[in-house]
Amino acid sequence: MSKKIKVGIVGGTGYTGVELLRLLALHPEAEITAITSRSEEGVPVAQMFPNLRGHLDLAFSQPDPKILSQCDVVFFATPNGTAMKLVPELLAAGTRVIDLAADFRLHDKDEWLQWYGMEHACPDLLTEAVYGLPEINRDQIKSAKLVANPGCYPTAVQLGFMPLLEANLVEPNQLIADTKSGVSGAGRGANVGTLLAEASESMKAYNVAGHRHWPEIRQGLNGMSQEQVGLTFVPHLTPMIRGIHATLYAKLNDKETDLQQLFEQRYQSEPFVDVMPAGSHPETRSVKGANHCRVAVHVPPSGDTVVVLSVIDNLVKGAAGQAVQNMNIMLGINETAGLEVIGLVP
Amino acid sequence: MSKKIKVGIVGGTGYTGVELLRLLALHPEAEITAITSRSEEGVPVAQMFPNLRGHLDLAFSQPDPKILSQCDVVFFATPNGTAMKLVPELLAAGTRVIDLAADFRLHDKDEWLQWYGMEHACPDLLTEAVYGLPEINRDQIKSAKLVANPGCYPTAVQLGFMPLLEANLVEPNQLIADTKSGVSGAGRGANVGTLLAEASESMKAYNVAGHRHWPEIRQGLNGMSQEQVGLTFVPHLTPMIRGIHATLYAKLNDKETDLQQLFEQRYQSEPFVDVMPAGSHPETRSVKGANHCRVAVHVPPSGDTVVVLSVIDNLVKGAAGQAVQNMNIMLGINETAGLEVIGLVP
Amino acid sequence: MSKKIKVGIVGGTGYTGVELLRLLALHPEAEITAITSRSEEGVPVAQMFPNLRGHLDLAFSQPDPKILSQCDVVFFATPNGTAMKLVPELLAAGTRVIDLAADFRLHDKDEWLQWYGMEHACPDLLTEAVYGLPEINRDQIKSAKLVANPGCYPTAVQLGFMPLLEANLVEPNQLIADTKSGVSGAGRGANVGTLLAEASESMKAYNVAGHRHWPEIRQGLNGMSQEQVGLTFVPHLTPMIRGIHATLYAKLNDKETDLQQLFEQRYQSEPFVDVMPAGSHPETRSVKGANHCRVAVHVPPSGDTVVVLSVIDNLVKGAAGQAVQNMNIMLGINETAGLEVIGLVP
Amino acid sequence: MSKKIKVGIVGGTGYTGVELLRLLALHPEAEITAITSRSEEGVPVAQMFPNLRGHLDLAFSQPDPKILSQCDVVFFATPNGTAMKLVPELLAAGTRVIDLAADFRLHDKDEWLQWYGMEHACPDLLTEAVYGLPEINRDQIKSAKLVANPGCYPTAVQLGFMPLLEANLVEPNQLIADTKSGVSGAGRGANVGTLLAEASESMKAYNVAGHRHWPEIRQGLNGMSQEQVGLTFVPHLTPMIRGIHATLYAKLNDKETDLQQLFEQRYQSEPFVDVMPAGSHPETRSVKGANHCRVAVHVPPSGDTVVVLSVIDNLVKGAAGQAVQNMNIMLGINETAGLEVIGLVP
Repeated sequence: MSKKIKVGIVGGTGYTGVELLRLLALHPEAEITAITSRSEEGVPVAQMFPNLRGHLDLAFSQPDPKILSQCDVVFFATPNGTAMKLVPELLAAGTRVIDLAADFRLHDKDEWLQWYGMEHACPDLLTEAVYGLPEINRDQIKSAKLVANPGCYPTAVQLGFMPLLEANLVEPNQLIADTKSGVSGAGRGANVGTLLAEASESMKAYNVAGHRHWPEIRQGLNGMSQEQVGLTFVPHLTPMIRGIHATLYAKLNDKETDLQQLFEQRYQSEPFVDVMPAGSHPETRSVKGANHCRVAVHVPPSGDTVVVLSVIDNLVKGAAGQAVQNMNIMLGINETAGLEVIGLVP
Repeated sequence: MSKKIKVGIVGGTGYTGVELLRLLALHPEAEITAITSRSEEGVPVAQMFPNLRGHLDLAFSQPDPKILSQCDVVFFATPNGTAMKLVPELLAAGTRVIDLAADFRLHDKDEWLQWYGMEHACPDLLTEAVYGLPEINRDQIKSAKLVANPGCYPTAVQLGFMPLLEANLVEPNQLIADTKSGVSGAGRGANVGTLLAEASESMKAYNVAGHRHWPEIRQGLNGMSQEQVGLTFVPHLTPMIRGIHATLYAKLNDKETDLQQLFEQRYQSEPFVDVMPAGSHPETRSVKGANHCRVAVHVPPSGDTVVVLSVIDNLVKGAAGQAVQNMNIMLGINETAGLEVIGLVP
Repeated sequence: MSKKIKVGIVGGTGYTGVELLRLLALHPEAEITAITSRSEEGVPVAQMFPNLRGHLDLAFSQPDPKILSQCDVVFFATPNGTAMKLVPELLAAGTRVIDLAADFRLHDKDEWLQWYGMEHACPDLLTEAVYGLPEINRDQIKSAKLVANPGCYPTAVQLGFMPLLEANLVEPNQLIADTKSGVSGAGRGANVGTLLAEASESMKAYNVAGHRHWPEIRQGLNGMSQEQVGLTFVPHLTPMIRGIHATLYAKLNDKETDLQQLFEQRYQSEPFVDVMPAGSHPETRSVKGANHCRVAVHVPPSGDTVVVLSVIDNLVKGAAGQAVQNMNIMLGINETAGLEVIGLVP
Repeated sequence: MSKKIKVGIVGGTGYTGVELLRLLALHPEAEITAITSRSEEGVPVAQMFPNLRGHLDLAFSQPDPKILSQCDVVFFATPNGTAMKLVPELLAAGTRVIDLAADFRLHDKDEWLQWYGMEHACPDLLTEAVYGLPEINRDQIKSAKLVANPGCYPTAVQLGFMPLLEANLVEPNQLIADTKSGVSGAGRGANVGTLLAEASESMKAYNVAGHRHWPEIRQGLNGMSQEQVGLTFVPHLTPMIRGIHATLYAKLNDKETDLQQLFEQRYQSEPFVDVMPAGSHPETRSVKGANHCRVAVHVPPSGDTVVVLSVIDNLVKGAAGQAVQNMNIMLGINETAGLEVIGLVP
């Protein structure tokens, strides 16, 4: 086998970080050479995450651009606003970057400011960055130096609406995305609202007045649509660890097209989008730990509303798995390398 | 205190049955005098449900119309299609009946046949039965002999849409109800799909092509609306025991009305509908074990879609609690008697 | 009805606090007149805990001894080490105090220092305080001014071992208490370890080398035993919100005694200890929200080891419910007042 | 690569069956050639288990000895009492067999009759069968034709007690195993007791008077001990899908030995037993989906009781993973092949 890809991870103590570690530790062509955490410097990674014992011998280190720039690719699994301060230096050194946070997802710096509450540190990179949804941007990802890995909700919602909008089959101004996420989507930070005793045995919507993924999704959907979309987006906190279930509604403007066939054709070459048979109801657990998005398309008897069900694991196809998929594409190796994981059922 | 109301329960071994027992065992003006189960005859109720030890001394008995007709009111917590066979005899004997199953919910016998797959045994009673949603039918319930207790989804959905439809503020033909239910909604029957190892840590939609609560909701909404409604209804199985979260979407045809005020006024006299402050996101756990419906109304920035969040405990306001509320109304006692329960948080 | 008991609660924002509120808001003879929280001053209680909407109109206030001393009884639901600073002043003013924290549980100030890491502020009160386990100290509680409400594990473990030790039927130096607690036992503080995404779908022991409830249990068991006890205590974090299951093991030194009868006789007059029929396995959910302890006693075929199963709701009989029971006893009202709650099943 | 191992699976519709499929579908040296189910004949496996879509193209077939005997190895993931009827014919044909049920675990046919309630169909094979716990029987497994894969509890308990008993450091007649299992251990059969609405948010012991794994564990421990063991075994149903946590107690008869060192040395060459650092508390989630057993050994301050914490995934090291490990050993390939899975955290 040829020399392995040298991988660095900045910010390895959150859920996207440990999920990157789980996938990359077993990746046949990659080797983790640096993992950083300001707060946990010197702590062996496997001490913090005992599931990695025997699989990874690294300790957390300070984020040192000199060391990171020796990597072939660096993943940022940091809070929003961190990557944008370090990325220019790494790109200058020729290191490829995949950012799992939101720093490079929005094309417009004013929109970034509005939704993330801070000036962008390198707005010129916003246009250079490639939005890392392979199902629509695979070619640009191949040659990208900087990939903005999509958010979890945006992945599930865009993959569900994509065939319909591309084919111009629905009214773009009345899209509804009712989305349900497991609690790990809120991250590993200490927080009363995501304690088991608070979030278990309960269901609630949140951020109905505005969620940061809304502009990201709208930007993506606009790219697929002939007209500007109107999107109502309601996220819900669901009492489970992993998984996103997006239930998508749109008004059909053409009732003749075979939607099942449309979806199957659109995704027939996609290794990680699985169009379920007609009449199916995908379960989030079918992708637990796996990089697949499973979708099903329905037209209920009322007749003029199409319902798309789209499920992913928010930490895999919605974060770390998609990041590895992007890495594979950027570095020209097999797109599915390291991602041959079957959903953990039961 | 005056003589207590004599209560009979037919079919006490399911979840709506045991929930009736929990509420009625502590009801200040009711006394359970008979509880039936063909399969568990002779078994003390508290042996099957140890949480009732010390609170209830009855044993299950065979359903005997003679004994049941000595009750002031009989609840049916039986599978669909059971009550309709016994109810005429009880009504003839002057006993009031509250059916927690679907036997008397639909006004149209053909629709019953279509959705429940059997001929109705007493179609003439379909028009006599009062649909037991007190917030809309309180007066008829007062004088009713036979009350059809609403389904769980229909309760949450109707209470959420009601103020909007009554005020004619939304397009009635594009209503969407995305609903999430805890697993107890599927009943206490042995079933692979609702095993903990199947339904926990997962989320899925089901019956997108048609759910029995769809015609029931549509019938109710039509009663509130000036035009026939068009409703897309998607139920989801959620990994929790109790709770329904209905997320309702409609297109506003009037953007000037103060919706918060509309909801507060509509429900200001309702003891069990709590309109949350503007901007709220009600949690299902806030009504766990309680008879309240909590609702919040939002208009997200996209502008022409109203979003209503409506939560209930499917076994209380969605079943047994609402049944007790109906009993209280029918028998002229305090509507909240026996229902002063605070949601169990955490 | 006579004038209601005036109740104050110091520290009402944690789980024992909100559970006190749930029980006291419906208590027929008590009235909450003050509830304090330094951090939440001015915030309506029902805003923080929406399950209380419609049941409680108070707002949090600063803890003011002048106001608190106007109460008949004050509950402390504060972190360890807080009550001991305020209690002397309240007692001097004639107000009774029930402390739900650990400040007055241990009789020995050095042991307090060792396990809680701070000097005791009023060591002279340690002997005056009555340990509030009604099943053993009911008479002292009746006349107590200051009650130390037992810990959750100690309640379940002591009630399980009590009949055996009092009757001198087991080797006191080889007691084992394997205990499993729901996550609410860890409190409402923001903490990574009790996030849903960390604590759900997992089981672990903790503090095997020493848990603060160990000296408390040992002190209690020593009071029941003719010899000093030797106790191995292993607590486990269990993926559920509420409930403690204590599995207790002891070596029998007398195999002739009918243990079922022994337990039934010991607890025959106790309103909140329910000895299950021989062969039973009590479930924690049977006491979810209720003040009962359910116990079962087994002698497995191996023959010389007795196994006691003891379940409580850690927030009710293990905290707030037992505190209300103590209040009822101290104030001479019906011991079960306000505690007629049936476990929420399912 | 050489020709792949041909694998058959009898009874592939339960949880151990689908777990075998998950592991074997990605095994680098094995190929599933037949999978049987009487009830699901003709149904594509991936239709029943959508997580396998894209990974496995087989359909269930009738169990045909002719086809099965063409396999190199056949796994039985059937109910107890099924394998013993088919195994002799397969062995005669030269096919190796690994039984995941209990048919060949007990050496004594009378004990089988007593605990499983049926005469054994091929008692002569009971002595030929090798008990498939590689950590103690690796050499016999290498040459075995028939392996009895251990039960889930027995795996966790035996691996925890083994170093202590082999070194004769504890009193063998006072062993206590308090074990907690996720609900998947009860299988995929429709059963009221394991419904989410019954088993979630609750904890209970079961079968205290006698569990089928008790004689199996006792047989195994006797093989490690110089004297007959006395074992008290109490299993508990825990509200999670996967995982076993065994908490083991024994009385030390030697307090000088360094137990940490003892455990580390005993398991230093074992690829799937991980001795945690002193003071650790292994979590079941650290092995979720993985074939590892993680153990920690403690001596709490009371002094003469040793506490061992032992965690496995009941479906992996407790069933399908260990079965694959046995297959690897029997067929002389790398023992860890196909088992390089990292626990899914969070």
